Amino acid sequence: MSEALDLEGWSCPLPLRDQPNIIMGHGGGGRLSAELIEHLFVPAFAGTQLADVLRQLGDAAVFDLGGARLAFSTDSYVVHPRFFPGGNIGDLAVNGTINDVAMSGASPFALSVGVILEEGLAIDELGRIATTMGEAARRAGVSIVTGDTKVVDNGHGDGVYINTTGVGLVQAGLDLGPHRVRAGDVIILSGSIGMHGIAIMSVREGLEFGSDILSDSAPLNGLVATMLASGADVHMMRDPTRGGVAATLNEIAAASSTGMKIVESSIPVDEDVRAACGFLGLDPMCVANEGKLVAFVAPEHADLVLEAMHGHEYGRGATSIGMVVEDHPGLVVAKTGIGGTRVVDFALAEQLPRIC
Amino acid sequence: MSEALDLEGWSCPLPLRDQPNIIMGHGGGGRLSAELIEHLFVPAFAGTQLADVLRQLGDAAVFDLGGARLAFSTDSYVVHPRFFPGGNIGDLAVNGTINDVAMSGASPFALSVGVILEEGLAIDELGRIATTMGEAARRAGVSIVTGDTKVVDNGHGDGVYINTTGVGLVQAGLDLGPHRVRAGDVIILSGSIGMHGIAIMSVREGLEFGSDILSDSAPLNGLVATMLASGADVHMMRDPTRGGVAATLNEIAAASSTGMKIVESSIPVDEDVRAACGFLGLDPMCVANEGKLVAFVAPEHADLVLEAMHGHEYGRGATSIGMVVEDHPGLVVAKTGIGGTRVVDFALAEQLPRIC
Repeated sequence: MSEALDLEGWSCPLPLRDQPNIIMGHGGGGRLSAELIEHLFVPAFAGTQLADVLRQLGDAAVFDLGGARLAFSTDSYVVHPRFFPGGNIGDLAVNGTINDVAMSGASPFALSVGVILEEGLAIDELGRIATTMGEAARRAGVSIVTGDTKVVDNGHGDGVYINTTGVGLVQAGLDLGPHRVRAGDVIILSGSIGMHGIAIMSVREGLEFGSDILSDSAPLNGLVATMLASGADVHMMRDPTRGGVAATLNEIAAASSTGMKIVESSIPVDEDVRAACGFLGLDPMCVANEGKLVAFVAPEHADLVLEAMHGHEYGRGATSIGMVVEDHPGLVVAKTGIGGTRVVDFALAEQLPRIC
Repeated sequence: MSEALDLEGWSCPLPLRDQPNIIMGHGGGGRLSAELIEHLFVPAFAGTQLADVLRQLGDAAVFDLGGARLAFSTDSYVVHPRFFPGGNIGDLAVNGTINDVAMSGASPFALSVGVILEEGLAIDELGRIATTMGEAARRAGVSIVTGDTKVVDNGHGDGVYINTTGVGLVQAGLDLGPHRVRAGDVIILSGSIGMHGIAIMSVREGLEFGSDILSDSAPLNGLVATMLASGADVHMMRDPTRGGVAATLNEIAAASSTGMKIVESSIPVDEDVRAACGFLGLDPMCVANEGKLVAFVAPEHADLVLEAMHGHEYGRGATSIGMVVEDHPGLVVAKTGIGGTRVVDFALAEQLPRIC
């Protein structure tokens, strides 16, 4: 914790904050996305009774209704292309929202599905996507209960965009979030990173990386239930999607006013993904995942939760990657392979547009 | 009830059911939309625990969770143009989903907002839309609690598409739906029809109809609460959006296996709207509304609920327009101004694409 920070290599791109129009980066889950939410949507939506919930900016809103403690989360999926190694936009949309609900500690229960279809889309293709959605929902034990279909004219969509919104039940007494993250917490990652982003990139760019890299798209509600059932004192969970593990750790460092210290060599990255990232000039920590989670756990419970995770199919590769520190609040610092340290920055925009 | 049906003029367009691609009509709220849901989405999503809820095909799914009885509804808004007389895509998205939740008898509580932005959209315009959304939510007493932002490249969107999903609480013992609609029920319409559709059409086509026709976009949760508080035995409610009153009555006739008999001259249509419909060759009963509801009420309670509605700003023009009959189940029959009868058909597709 007392190592001197090496601030060289801290990326500080010129901000493009004053441009008057939406650019791709506003949807990338990076700083531009965060600024749009913080400076445009949050003020516009303020003043309603639950404005505080919105301001938490969590993956899911958690609130009481009719005696139940609900988690509620929405995501639109615009991934391009719609079919990619390891999945398609349909299972991505189901798993993604299940995961956002689950990260609040809730058990996801029901999903809504809203599709925006582009005129000309093959109905057969829509059928394959919908079938995959049903399969994903059944696998996760979550019901699709309501939906909506809109069609836009050719040239105003891209085949199909899907919004899924999920509702789940938070068990009594459970309280997860950045307010519970504190110095000493062990940071646990559920498995190897970067697979979803590289899978998309490979098919989009027609790249071949020797073997197929498959998206890791998976429902994490079962893994979360297993972790909570272990009795471990989990303080927070988040799935590192857009912006990758780097964005997730930075957001939580900022929201919890803590520092994060990670050991780069402890972060699992498959060889194929590492090679592809090298080829493409990407940092695996900034690449999107769709079936991984980061958890912050009381240090005395880290082994307990890791053992529980190792017994679950989506947690076999779980490992601790670092810890929360009092130093440098808001900053994520990595110990590099060559023994130095670097600041793990929060990308200004996304490296890979339309990744989910 | 014993009048002979005049089946002449029953429109029976050649169905285009075998085309392999999505056409605009699949999003119009007409028969093609219904077929896509019934034959593609419902089978694909079957087999989850709440599949029966989906099959109800109501505006909102209603189910129990954690002791609460929840209503849950989603809608994506792709209206073109984004700004129109009487509103914009933002307040439409808030009011529309509030109304879908309210039609189940629920009190809408929280909304999620998912936006799909097109690269190049003016941030100022997005700000105006978001501000309108916040105003609409505050006016209706509903909170926007969570959201998501995606950006698609230029040429794959149309400025902004908005998904709103709402959750609300159904009071204990309340049970509304087509299964409660029965012969003898009085059909009540909350006010004059066709305003939203004609407002969109006028600006889209650059038409002038003498005076401005404004969209009727409004939140109906207060009106619904007033109706239920009156103590009247309301059997079902629905807001006649895409496809208008004609589609709504046909859907309910089919779902409840009853017939509907309405008196055309009793349906309130503003003079400007009637003139515009005449000019455009549209039947006002097929034109979309965004601030009206149709209610089915036990006959002995019709006056009670009408009186309650007349005391609410969005129910001042409420009137009974017909009744549910045992004859001709599944058919909606109108007594015309010249004393004949006609079958009010369910349009194959929409008259006005991208109306909401």
